Amino acid sequence: MILFDYSNLLEENVKEHGLPKNFIERHQGLIKEAHHILSKGLPFIDILYKNDYLSSIKKFSRENRGRWENLVVFGIGGSCLGPLALHLALNHPFHNIISKEKRDGLPRAFFLDNIDPELIFGLLESIEIKNTLFLVISKSGKTSETLAQFLIALERLKDLDLKRQVVIITDPERGPLRRICNEEGYTSFPIPPALGGRYSVLSPVGLVSSALLGIDIDALILGARDMAERCKDIKDNPAYVFALSHYLLYKEGKNIHILMPYINALGGIADWFCQLWAESLGKRYNINKEEVFCGPTPIKAIGVKDQHSQLQLYMEGPYDKVITFLTAKDYRSCVNIPTFYPDITDISFLGNHTLNELIKAEQIATEAALTSERRPNAKFVLDRVDPFNLGGLFVLFEIATATFGTLCKINPFDQPGVELGKLYTHALMGKPNLDKEKEEIEKFLKRPIYQV
Amino acid sequence: MILFDYSNLLEENVKEHGLPKNFIERHQGLIKEAHHILSKGLPFIDILYKNDYLSSIKKFSRENRGRWENLVVFGIGGSCLGPLALHLALNHPFHNIISKEKRDGLPRAFFLDNIDPELIFGLLESIEIKNTLFLVISKSGKTSETLAQFLIALERLKDLDLKRQVVIITDPERGPLRRICNEEGYTSFPIPPALGGRYSVLSPVGLVSSALLGIDIDALILGARDMAERCKDIKDNPAYVFALSHYLLYKEGKNIHILMPYINALGGIADWFCQLWAESLGKRYNINKEEVFCGPTPIKAIGVKDQHSQLQLYMEGPYDKVITFLTAKDYRSCVNIPTFYPDITDISFLGNHTLNELIKAEQIATEAALTSERRPNAKFVLDRVDPFNLGGLFVLFEIATATFGTLCKINPFDQPGVELGKLYTHALMGKPNLDKEKEEIEKFLKRPIYQV
Repeated sequence: MILFDYSNLLEENVKEHGLPKNFIERHQGLIKEAHHILSKGLPFIDILYKNDYLSSIKKFSRENRGRWENLVVFGIGGSCLGPLALHLALNHPFHNIISKEKRDGLPRAFFLDNIDPELIFGLLESIEIKNTLFLVISKSGKTSETLAQFLIALERLKDLDLKRQVVIITDPERGPLRRICNEEGYTSFPIPPALGGRYSVLSPVGLVSSALLGIDIDALILGARDMAERCKDIKDNPAYVFALSHYLLYKEGKNIHILMPYINALGGIADWFCQLWAESLGKRYNINKEEVFCGPTPIKAIGVKDQHSQLQLYMEGPYDKVITFLTAKDYRSCVNIPTFYPDITDISFLGNHTLNELIKAEQIATEAALTSERRPNAKFVLDRVDPFNLGGLFVLFEIATATFGTLCKINPFDQPGVELGKLYTHALMGKPNLDKEKEEIEKFLKRPIYQV
Repeated sequence: MILFDYSNLLEENVKEHGLPKNFIERHQGLIKEAHHILSKGLPFIDILYKNDYLSSIKKFSRENRGRWENLVVFGIGGSCLGPLALHLALNHPFHNIISKEKRDGLPRAFFLDNIDPELIFGLLESIEIKNTLFLVISKSGKTSETLAQFLIALERLKDLDLKRQVVIITDPERGPLRRICNEEGYTSFPIPPALGGRYSVLSPVGLVSSALLGIDIDALILGARDMAERCKDIKDNPAYVFALSHYLLYKEGKNIHILMPYINALGGIADWFCQLWAESLGKRYNINKEEVFCGPTPIKAIGVKDQHSQLQLYMEGPYDKVITFLTAKDYRSCVNIPTFYPDITDISFLGNHTLNELIKAEQIATEAALTSERRPNAKFVLDRVDPFNLGGLFVLFEIATATFGTLCKINPFDQPGVELGKLYTHALMGKPNLDKEKEEIEKFLKRPIYQV
């Protein structure tokens, strides 16, 4: 169960920085319009029902159980953020440190979402290649970063059991990685073609590594379907309320949207959300081809630690933010704070409580303090952190993103702005047929430089 | 050597979103005024010359070399971000995974900057307490989160060699942690009283863990002094140019300031910067007690991975951002990309290059693409990532922060906005003499709740 508490977005709590109590009814027309458009079908919902790859993923993960010391995932952006978020949320916080027995025979996990040579060199120094399963994830099969990582691994694997050690997740028919799969006979899983990278966590992109890392992927899908059903209803729809409230506050100049889990393990969920929100909603043109330069800026913050870093700004800075807490009714561990130094008040009041009480008190205190300063804030409450609820949370945010995009009349499913940088990179790396880009980038490199 | 390249902040490159070429001369008056104020003395500069604790830190770290399997740091905010940034920047990217021999006998490092019971429970399960050195860091000695962690460790240490296993870093005279040190005889190091937490990285706060983790702290201090000397000059001062340019663009509505390292290991430096910038500059009142609600919002992004997450928004969203890249001339490793599949163009162009070339091409391509979209961006270039340059970078950002604050006429050294949340937390935890806060928070908890 996931609830969205929007009390502190309302005027009755945050005065002129909030929304009228009846904002949902008042903007029912907008919601109906968006609902009409979204009801025509959403690829990230469709895949929850057409996932015939589910049983082969489970079969593959059963066959590989206990076989590998390391799982290395090569992927970037949507090919990493979802799978990584699931691992961080659901596995041990020190998964790679504890013994293989404590990990129930699961492999250590390395999500390589960067091409920094220090990082890749460091990894190659740290693991035994022969005990490692490599998962290569790229929708288009053309992602330079992922391909470069794959080539580097291939060279080190070439005398080993390549076909057992490489798994590819890519488009079912097109692209260079698919061609390689077909030619070399690697194990592979398909990414449904209609699905954009940042909406792909509940496809093989997120499911294969999760299954290999012991996560119950059936429960993930069940929770996702449950939320999809709940969001078919226009009424009491948490995705619509989240999207509409953020849209209205965005229109009022609150262009910074913060997601702040008070569960350390959900930091990856916040990173995943930041991609979804930024890449879907940051757009130059609306669907009528008018320039709009739209897009709230998402930020990840982590409670309680960012109380000691960002909270001062949230409390006293410009009124340009909306903060959404992400909480759960219970934590999965309980730690007592013992009593020592009974005569030192600053210490003794902590004794005979639990860390659970302290972190909950800090979350409520932060919420109350922000509200008293008229800083709009909201809260998701999960009854617990588990695959079912995370599946639901992914779908909730995906629908909310599509809704926000629809309200802004922009296309939340493309990302035209990243093409130019890719072309310039390819031109610099000597890829053929990029004369115009090569000329532009060379001109750029020759401009006068000003530095101190 | 650190250079600040501000070419792409200028009108000649980003047109109406940039600054005139002569912006420094044009605002010489502002700079002189700030220079006059800052020249009176800055505590974070003073400590670079009055650090008589340096030799005792080095002695302590020599004595403890090879002794411990684990180093656990309890601290939050400024007591964690600096030390953690140094460790991440200068040690192996998989420090806790590689063997003790590969780590030169250094302990594994755990920076516990949160009180989530799942995290703390997970840590206690994962390490052997008797082989662990605990570092407890709190300026005031009153930080609830750090004290709670300390109490939890104490209970598990009580039958062990407590005095050898606990080190405390706090105010030299005041606060509960100092009192405990005096009573129990723990090893301790002082935090100079004039120094705010977020400006304390080059005091024992950042130096003790660094020394224990094999970092050359003399070089850190030398680099910091070198930058402090360089910034005594009003001319060609990178801190002033960074602060002034960001201040002028902030005044033009660019309220989001992104720091984007293209060195994976410098992610911690970006987190450290985000605290420094947010907590120092996010202020309700200026020094004349007028309400200003000032403060740019800092964001950490990481190249290249955030090209696949945030770049779409940076390229096409609102013109509300300034992006600063953090780069180095060379990486500390080099990895070749081998040639496979010569007949697949999307792959073959990568072969016979290095990852170093690819990541540098992507950084330049991103810079060029942003510039062509008139998105102001700048770049720090370190000749290499080492303690000397990091010491310099810390001081550069600290001076820039003080300068930005001075230009805004706010106090960059306090953080009054976080008090209310602390009081509410204490009231909820039953600390005595907080009747007013208790009443307020209870009233808050009884307000009507709206949720879906």
